[in-house]
Amino acid sequence: MNPTIELLKSHRSIRKFTDQAIPRELFVELIRAGQSAATSSHVQAYSVIHVVNPQNRQKIAELAGGQAYIAECSDFLVFCADMKRSTGAAERAGADVVRGMTEQLVVASVDTALMAQNVAIAAESEGLGLCYIGGIRNNPAEISEILHLPEHVYPVFGMCLGYPDQRPEVKPRLPAETILKEDYYQDEQDEAQVADFDATMNTYYLERTGGNKDTNWSEQLKPLFTSKLRPHMKDFLHGKGFRME
Amino acid sequence: MNPTIELLKSHRSIRKFTDQAIPRELFVELIRAGQSAATSSHVQAYSVIHVVNPQNRQKIAELAGGQAYIAECSDFLVFCADMKRSTGAAERAGADVVRGMTEQLVVASVDTALMAQNVAIAAESEGLGLCYIGGIRNNPAEISEILHLPEHVYPVFGMCLGYPDQRPEVKPRLPAETILKEDYYQDEQDEAQVADFDATMNTYYLERTGGNKDTNWSEQLKPLFTSKLRPHMKDFLHGKGFRME
Repeated sequence: MNPTIELLKSHRSIRKFTDQAIPRELFVELIRAGQSAATSSHVQAYSVIHVVNPQNRQKIAELAGGQAYIAECSDFLVFCADMKRSTGAAERAGADVVRGMTEQLVVASVDTALMAQNVAIAAESEGLGLCYIGGIRNNPAEISEILHLPEHVYPVFGMCLGYPDQRPEVKPRLPAETILKEDYYQDEQDEAQVADFDATMNTYYLERTGGNKDTNWSEQLKPLFTSKLRPHMKDFLHGKGFRME
Repeated sequence: MNPTIELLKSHRSIRKFTDQAIPRELFVELIRAGQSAATSSHVQAYSVIHVVNPQNRQKIAELAGGQAYIAECSDFLVFCADMKRSTGAAERAGADVVRGMTEQLVVASVDTALMAQNVAIAAESEGLGLCYIGGIRNNPAEISEILHLPEHVYPVFGMCLGYPDQRPEVKPRLPAETILKEDYYQDEQDEAQVADFDATMNTYYLERTGGNKDTNWSEQLKPLFTSKLRPHMKDFLHGKGFRME
């Protein structure tokens, strides 16, 4: 296993950071490393908002569900899927542009994620820690307002970056054989494999909490799907011009 | 710049591969490295189909727009957003599951992309080359049929993996200052910056083709947005249970 693969496999979310600031030069280097990720048809359908204003970081921390580390970390980023820049460029070049297609939502969301994951790996390769913030989508309209996001731009997730002040364990993942399938999708063994994984996760939670958190993977997923998680997303995206046509 | 960041910044798509096969052990290691990526609420909303059957690879190569390297590379993967496994697990645990939410499309697509990007980096760290195949979405219904993809699973993109038999240049990216914004989205300088980037890309295309390809970024984007690119995606996703509610 080479050091890069070792680095990838040692990922865990960091939610507690020292006061040390990331040097500006390194910070920009992380962004450049992000931009080197593959991009669909070279569209580069993303913008990254570096939230520096402390009041805004505090507000976003609350809107994302009370995640204090958004205000506390060295640098906080909001990764946005951006169809404005590329469609604008095509329009100025004379194209009669069609916006709001479902495909464009997929392209821009995927482009943004590939880019962010490169930023994450670059950061970890420099000893930094990070945490993705999906909670941005708890209140995407309010957060878009704070960041002045225009139409055809939507905040996909945030990312806290800084020097780690904790060393959490690596969280287990499903066995490779559960998610990797040869030639055809088949899931006859899913139920048994998930049961095994539930046992793995139960041990993980119990050990981490001195016996207090007696739960497993399936149990933890329940609240995500029983209620309509983030039911505003459709209307929010429509309002931002991602009409999913 | 550390070796990992150097690796990230040297990414380019590889479309020509030697006959050398990726050892199975290494291949599985790449998948495991992929699974170590961050995942929203630990959902791990992806499955990867390893397409081994040569006839199926040939068919997919055609359906993806005639991309022969899909059939030629050592290993071809289709990365699928999978909401079936996790919602099924929650259901067996007693949850009254809601499916088809827009949020779930975003979560599963992002999870899949983060995972795939880790696979890509792990591969490149071992001297392999790769190429993402968005062309999978040219004919997603036919490809889903070949791969027996069930409801709540959709193919986001493919990936060709193998030992590179070409050394293409690194393709330029937009300047970091174009995509990185402090505190607020602003794009007053976008037009000027895109014009500069168009000049950069014009030089790149001319040099790479001995003067034959006289185009730029904005021009290259035009066909993507003038016609309705992949207008079937909405109905296809709806049919797969991603109803974007």
